[in-house]
Amino acid sequence: MYRLYDFLPSGNSYKVRLLLNQLEIPFEKVEVNVLTRETRTPEFLVKNPNGRIPVLEIGAGKFLAESNAILFYLSEGTDYLPEDSWEKAQVMQWLFFEQFSHEPNIATSRFWISILKKAEEYKDALQQKQKLGYAALEVMEKHLSNLDFFVADRYTIADISLYAYTHVAHEGGFDLTRFPAILAWLERVKTQPRHISIANT
Amino acid sequence: MYRLYDFLPSGNSYKVRLLLNQLEIPFEKVEVNVLTRETRTPEFLVKNPNGRIPVLEIGAGKFLAESNAILFYLSEGTDYLPEDSWEKAQVMQWLFFEQFSHEPNIATSRFWISILKKAEEYKDALQQKQKLGYAALEVMEKHLSNLDFFVADRYTIADISLYAYTHVAHEGGFDLTRFPAILAWLERVKTQPRHISIANT
Repeated sequence: MYRLYDFLPSGNSYKVRLLLNQLEIPFEKVEVNVLTRETRTPEFLVKNPNGRIPVLEIGAGKFLAESNAILFYLSEGTDYLPEDSWEKAQVMQWLFFEQFSHEPNIATSRFWISILKKAEEYKDALQQKQKLGYAALEVMEKHLSNLDFFVADRYTIADISLYAYTHVAHEGGFDLTRFPAILAWLERVKTQPRHISIANT
Repeated sequence: MYRLYDFLPSGNSYKVRLLLNQLEIPFEKVEVNVLTRETRTPEFLVKNPNGRIPVLEIGAGKFLAESNAILFYLSEGTDYLPEDSWEKAQVMQWLFFEQFSHEPNIATSRFWISILKKAEEYKDALQQKQKLGYAALEVMEKHLSNLDFFVADRYTIADISLYAYTHVAHEGGFDLTRFPAILAWLERVKTQPRHISIANT
């Protein structure tokens, strides 16, 4: 059985929980507290030398890190990843967009404001994060203005990946009411079969 | 024929040029100057709404952004991407590591110091980038200490992706002499068939 090293508030971990649930794959969950640096112990660094969750243990000594790599691994050959090479490439494009342009700004703002509760301490850095986070949201809004989902006209891991931190962007100080296409897409994602919330253990 | 929207000093663009050359795929190159914001013109934003190079035009109206998504697209079904699902997942893991933990620190330091030549202006931000960049290099050094290549004991797009900014890390103020396993790996990458340098147009 898969074992997921997880941290409940993490959107990156949530992506994996959500897909596992939608694929109806049973898994064991091991909570690793990022805040007390449990991801930096010698024991954990054997699993992921980069010291981050989520990590999926897929067999003896086989540990897979990076949330979007895990989504890719689990979704290949399923309805959640298109087979067509151009469609698959577009899914990959959005996964890299998410990790480079979206997550470092939107997830980090949420982490500082709502998880660490240190908005004042990070005030200056937050300004830059807000600017870049809104730029990422603009790119998404534009793309979704005439599409229901990010790629191939259907729900894929591109949607799962981008949903994880977008639907809690308000916890990072982002005002989503400016983005009607994103709001409508969030609702479509939420109504997919076997959807679970980020707080669902 | 593929058309690559490119910026010569960019390691992200170099990844794509290197793989195209190793695959012996002819392509047309269109230079887009990042420094004069040619990536932010209305014409370019149609190609990539996120305003970044590289972009690979693979057919009429088909534009693919994100360097590692392009590597994935070009390498599927070739010797540069393993077919085995666990090996492929590990390649993906390193591609996401590169874009999340490596590129934002090492490439950005190089951009500020050697391309913009504004080391003094970015002095404070560079401190944090150096710390995180060295952490990424430590992860690579540890992994390579008993391996010749990142995944599957052979040269893959994981090596191409990580090589692009590692081999010019000194231009971002990083001292690679501390990392013997990385230095030996850089030499192995350099001697692969049809290798080209970053300055090769």
